[in-house]
Amino acid sequence: MSRPIVVMKFGGSSVRDAERLKNAAARVVETQKEGNRVVVVVSAPGDMTDDLIERANGITSEPDGREMDMLLATGEQISIALLCMAIKTHGLDAISLTGPQAGIRADAVHTKARITSIRPTKLLAELNKGRVVVVAGFQGLNPNEDIVTLGRGGSDLTAVALAAALKSDVCEIFTDVLGVYTTDPRIVPEAQKIAQISYDEMLELAGSGAQVMQARSIEVAKKYGVKIHVRSSLEKKKGTLIENDNGNMEAPVVSGIAFDKNEAKLSIVEVPDQPGVAAAIFGALAENSINVDMIIQSSAQDGTNDISFTVSRPDLKRALTILEAVKNKLKAKAVVSDESVAKVSIVGVGMKSHPGVAAKMFATMAEAGINIEMISTSEIKVACVIREADGTKAVKLLHKVFGLGKSKR
Amino acid sequence: MSRPIVVMKFGGSSVRDAERLKNAAARVVETQKEGNRVVVVVSAPGDMTDDLIERANGITSEPDGREMDMLLATGEQISIALLCMAIKTHGLDAISLTGPQAGIRADAVHTKARITSIRPTKLLAELNKGRVVVVAGFQGLNPNEDIVTLGRGGSDLTAVALAAALKSDVCEIFTDVLGVYTTDPRIVPEAQKIAQISYDEMLELAGSGAQVMQARSIEVAKKYGVKIHVRSSLEKKKGTLIENDNGNMEAPVVSGIAFDKNEAKLSIVEVPDQPGVAAAIFGALAENSINVDMIIQSSAQDGTNDISFTVSRPDLKRALTILEAVKNKLKAKAVVSDESVAKVSIVGVGMKSHPGVAAKMFATMAEAGINIEMISTSEIKVACVIREADGTKAVKLLHKVFGLGKSKR
Repeated sequence: MSRPIVVMKFGGSSVRDAERLKNAAARVVETQKEGNRVVVVVSAPGDMTDDLIERANGITSEPDGREMDMLLATGEQISIALLCMAIKTHGLDAISLTGPQAGIRADAVHTKARITSIRPTKLLAELNKGRVVVVAGFQGLNPNEDIVTLGRGGSDLTAVALAAALKSDVCEIFTDVLGVYTTDPRIVPEAQKIAQISYDEMLELAGSGAQVMQARSIEVAKKYGVKIHVRSSLEKKKGTLIENDNGNMEAPVVSGIAFDKNEAKLSIVEVPDQPGVAAAIFGALAENSINVDMIIQSSAQDGTNDISFTVSRPDLKRALTILEAVKNKLKAKAVVSDESVAKVSIVGVGMKSHPGVAAKMFATMAEAGINIEMISTSEIKVACVIREADGTKAVKLLHKVFGLGKSKR
Repeated sequence: MSRPIVVMKFGGSSVRDAERLKNAAARVVETQKEGNRVVVVVSAPGDMTDDLIERANGITSEPDGREMDMLLATGEQISIALLCMAIKTHGLDAISLTGPQAGIRADAVHTKARITSIRPTKLLAELNKGRVVVVAGFQGLNPNEDIVTLGRGGSDLTAVALAAALKSDVCEIFTDVLGVYTTDPRIVPEAQKIAQISYDEMLELAGSGAQVMQARSIEVAKKYGVKIHVRSSLEKKKGTLIENDNGNMEAPVVSGIAFDKNEAKLSIVEVPDQPGVAAAIFGALAENSINVDMIIQSSAQDGTNDISFTVSRPDLKRALTILEAVKNKLKAKAVVSDESVAKVSIVGVGMKSHPGVAAKMFATMAEAGINIEMISTSEIKVACVIREADGTKAVKLLHKVFGLGKSKR
């Protein structure tokens, strides 16, 4: 009963076919044999979620949210059944649970529900029978007893939330890469795997375009102190530990560099300078669930302002429609959009104690002739919006300037 | 509240792609607009169940029953979601329910559970909101709160059981053919669609190899007096009504001819003639869930019997293994099997009042030089086991001799 609980999460590519499923099962069996109680969370196999969405699109361009959730939840259900079968071939007992069966309760918002609580009674009972419990990620039960899905990164969220509810020692996120890198190795071949990173740094990296984990899972992990181990499903090497900042004085100034080509820039030009302008603009966007990233307001000239900000590119079209209405209401001159931008960010807890990091970043860009269009900063991050065409060059330069390619950490 | 309830069931081929789903949705909308409350039961799309079984076989040759049910239940869940989306494009409200959500409770036997009860509280509530309710066939919830599937013909069973629980006016079974035929039209092109047939006749036809519906669904329909309408999902013609025998004096002597190539013959040779022999043989087979069809025991000679019977071909290998053990226990001489047999059956309530029907069948076979190896009869059926090679000839002859190709009924 007192064996530690480990939560292992396998993404879609790690369960996409029989071979990968067997590989995942072997990892699970190993972890159980090391003396742990094991909870496994899985995503839908490979491209299944995309296939299901395509089926829905063959029927209607506006599928109902409840029915979409009913449809999409099947993908993870297929994975849990197959993975259990694979685990059982090792002579180890295993049982699959859908999100609702695992006691995952969520709010009523279809296709992007939030977990409200977890009642792991059945899950714990099965664990304590010596069984591996395999839980469908990405799904829960809402107050109407309907199946809901948790939106992007939902399976990671399931894993982290279960780890929190079960007071698990570690939540292992298995993926195609070896861990979290100092930057995208496809851009900078010298990029290094990061051995340890704080929640806050990981949050900034995720928010700045690093694809490893969604920010929402890291937020939950931080809130409940869940230690995350991002590692390869194919190699047994240690990956990247995401945990509380241990206050390491030797921490590097910059931990990683993120690059995001998924943003678009919007400007409302010559908005009359009066109270409530920002509220009108960003209120209208928020009402339509459009997230805004950087915001810059020029100082007033001739009684008008220019307000610029970024949104994610898939939201651009909807944002433009909304802003046209806002523009007319505010009597602004025009709405201008630009999709040829990219965001480059440097992230690191070490920045707190090292002044001049931002200045070094700006100087590097200036020397290379890269124009900075927008800047935003936090205690542990500096992000710049530049021309998309300059992005790769900027990432390579910054990776070198901040010494990230030099040594394993 | 007092609008009649109609249960409509669409099989896998009727929901296999977007086009078929839209077609099914149109039929549903039409039925609702005629003033009915509509419950729809659907199977998994097209070959999905086979695909899922193949995925499981890629993992293990002996998949766990519970996990198999977890896996297979996803097929129907995909269909209900997509069909609801299609219905909603007509501006009609619809809601999908899994078998468990529809209140279908079953026993604990995985992959071939039996329905124990239906609690249609939620289903009725949704119907009375004016919604079409789309229910996943083939599945239910067992007393452990696990998903179970209902085995072969499970979706038909769901439809008939729901029709019984809801006291529905009619259970419409939509299929690829126009209805139930006097015999297989691929063998006899003159075969006619039957307009009306009794439960008992349909039971005998189903038990004798006619593929339209499984016997278990018809048994439930008979028990609860559910009127079944087997009809085409593509054409709007009336199909075949399966209902209580209306005592029609004009009923034809023979209603249909069934042909079954799925049987194998087994004989235990020279079994010592002593009490308990039959119990030993058929008890052992029943324990292993092997159904036995015809049984013939030769009269005792020299203190021994030969016992012959038929099983369905997929069960033959297992039956042989079991019988070898039984043979040794009983000190019988040998076990002999034969897969080259077929069963031809004539079925009709009219037989009750027309003596000599069986004799006419035997004479027809004799004239054609077809040897009859086994015979079994009921009040409304005569079945003969013959060489498989003679099967087609026998069906064609009997269809003609009993006048089934002549007129629409």
